[in-house]
Amino acid sequence: MNFQYVIGVDMGGTNTAVGIVDTRGNILCRTQIQTTEYTTGEAYAEALGEAINRLIADNGLTDKIKGIGMGTPSGNMNDGTIAPAANIPWAKNQAVPMAKLLTDITGLPCRLTNDANAAALGEKEYGSAKGMRDFIVITLGTGVGSGIVAGGELVVGHDGFAGELGHVRVVRHNGRACGCGRSGCLETYASATGVARTAREFLERHPEQPSVLRDITTRPISSKDVFEAAEKNDALALEVFDFTGKILGDALCDFIAFSSPQAVILFGGLAHAGKYLLPPLKEEMEKHILYIYKGKTQILISSLNDAEAAILGASALAW
Amino acid sequence: MNFQYVIGVDMGGTNTAVGIVDTRGNILCRTQIQTTEYTTGEAYAEALGEAINRLIADNGLTDKIKGIGMGTPSGNMNDGTIAPAANIPWAKNQAVPMAKLLTDITGLPCRLTNDANAAALGEKEYGSAKGMRDFIVITLGTGVGSGIVAGGELVVGHDGFAGELGHVRVVRHNGRACGCGRSGCLETYASATGVARTAREFLERHPEQPSVLRDITTRPISSKDVFEAAEKNDALALEVFDFTGKILGDALCDFIAFSSPQAVILFGGLAHAGKYLLPPLKEEMEKHILYIYKGKTQILISSLNDAEAAILGASALAW
Repeated sequence: MNFQYVIGVDMGGTNTAVGIVDTRGNILCRTQIQTTEYTTGEAYAEALGEAINRLIADNGLTDKIKGIGMGTPSGNMNDGTIAPAANIPWAKNQAVPMAKLLTDITGLPCRLTNDANAAALGEKEYGSAKGMRDFIVITLGTGVGSGIVAGGELVVGHDGFAGELGHVRVVRHNGRACGCGRSGCLETYASATGVARTAREFLERHPEQPSVLRDITTRPISSKDVFEAAEKNDALALEVFDFTGKILGDALCDFIAFSSPQAVILFGGLAHAGKYLLPPLKEEMEKHILYIYKGKTQILISSLNDAEAAILGASALAW
Repeated sequence: MNFQYVIGVDMGGTNTAVGIVDTRGNILCRTQIQTTEYTTGEAYAEALGEAINRLIADNGLTDKIKGIGMGTPSGNMNDGTIAPAANIPWAKNQAVPMAKLLTDITGLPCRLTNDANAAALGEKEYGSAKGMRDFIVITLGTGVGSGIVAGGELVVGHDGFAGELGHVRVVRHNGRACGCGRSGCLETYASATGVARTAREFLERHPEQPSVLRDITTRPISSKDVFEAAEKNDALALEVFDFTGKILGDALCDFIAFSSPQAVILFGGLAHAGKYLLPPLKEEMEKHILYIYKGKTQILISSLNDAEAAILGASALAW
């Protein structure tokens, strides 16, 4: 059979987006379901499987679909399960064999992995990493994730959970408390949450320094606020990005010593602040990189459209 | 043809050891040449190639050899060259296409890589990592090196220089000066040299504390001295290993977040102090490992015979 299309599924904490994708990375049609309105993994899988079947039938693509690729929080590529995840009601206490459940309902082969690995595959198939065999995608969102490709293959580890670079400790003493229960993780500094945290810290530490961020009093400051302040040339906001970029650049030196990638690609919400993050990041890298890697690794901002990237990344698993 | 043997070449800073190895990892016969007595890479390659040809002929193994595997400092698996290396007179200023030179002289295919990668391949083929697809070998010698296997393949990076985990910075502020020109690298703490350095530091910092190491006055204290002192239950020597094991355990937490290996294998001279290093190492890991990896990664001491391991590791490249 001549398979021309794959299904990409991006399961988020709230919505699950589904798209049919062609070989060039065009999303032909979409649908979505709520992630959290189901009480069991089976019920969620059934709703998702039926949504997929309907989308295929409605678009007259029966027998033209090669398979399903899915990106999920805690997705384990090795065994196709979603590991227990605190913020998904139907996966709170147990692993859910999602790939198998979806195959049972749709008759299509299904592979899944975590969001950051899906992003890496998306970059490889359709984005900045086309043709690269060694690269790292760092996802800068609410948290910090990573997808590592070495020798053309995703590094998944013996248990399927490799690539948690957001939880490499960049500050070993008196670091910020992390949601993982430890402290000093990269995620506590270089995520959207980390940027907002830095802003609040800087505002408190330098009470004399004026900043438009001080006008925000009725809600917590967000990373978007910091970005908008930087756009207005706010000195404190610019210092926040300088600090963030430096910590990230410093961490990248260690990541490069691991897999010597051709490129590191920054992906996700905070990557849109690339023009503020990249100069201090590169300056710090230049200062701290081991001499044998000097000037070899490109630092890129993802060129994929945010709204599409997650579906595309997931779909890349199915080719 | 039925190839039953391969050649393993271990090029050290002083000697180059050559052995013929069978499929089970037995070294049938050996020879060696001096590494440094040649003025050009071509002259060295010629001497080495002829030594290999002679060893094969003398043992009646012509036409039974599959190829040559070579472990060298700065060996680049991607292109078969030895990168410029300060301590090798004939490779001081330029890369030497060693694999090609050896093939020209012996008529055998040749692959080379750096020592730590060769050690990793040796563990995979003949040692503790048999059957493992994801593991990291940390070589604890004069320096600290590493060979990373992910998904069954050696991680070499886009330029062939991946896996410099000895130069991950474990102390970011006021760390020890490293030979690489930076500071705080793992190598400055967890190598044989690092252990000796720690001992000298501890002796100076606690002048009141008795230690048999104080009796060594006519030469610099070595890591072997520290080991022997620990064997005599010397408290300061034991504290040195405790400190070293903890730094290493802490660093391993970050390495595991990268590739989630089934095992980390400690290899090389300092690994013989495993009984002193492992308890603090494991204690620190238990304390600092990200929860999803807890209790999953084995920490092993290489079971390969030191004298043979380097040749075996290199030979594994040729199968």
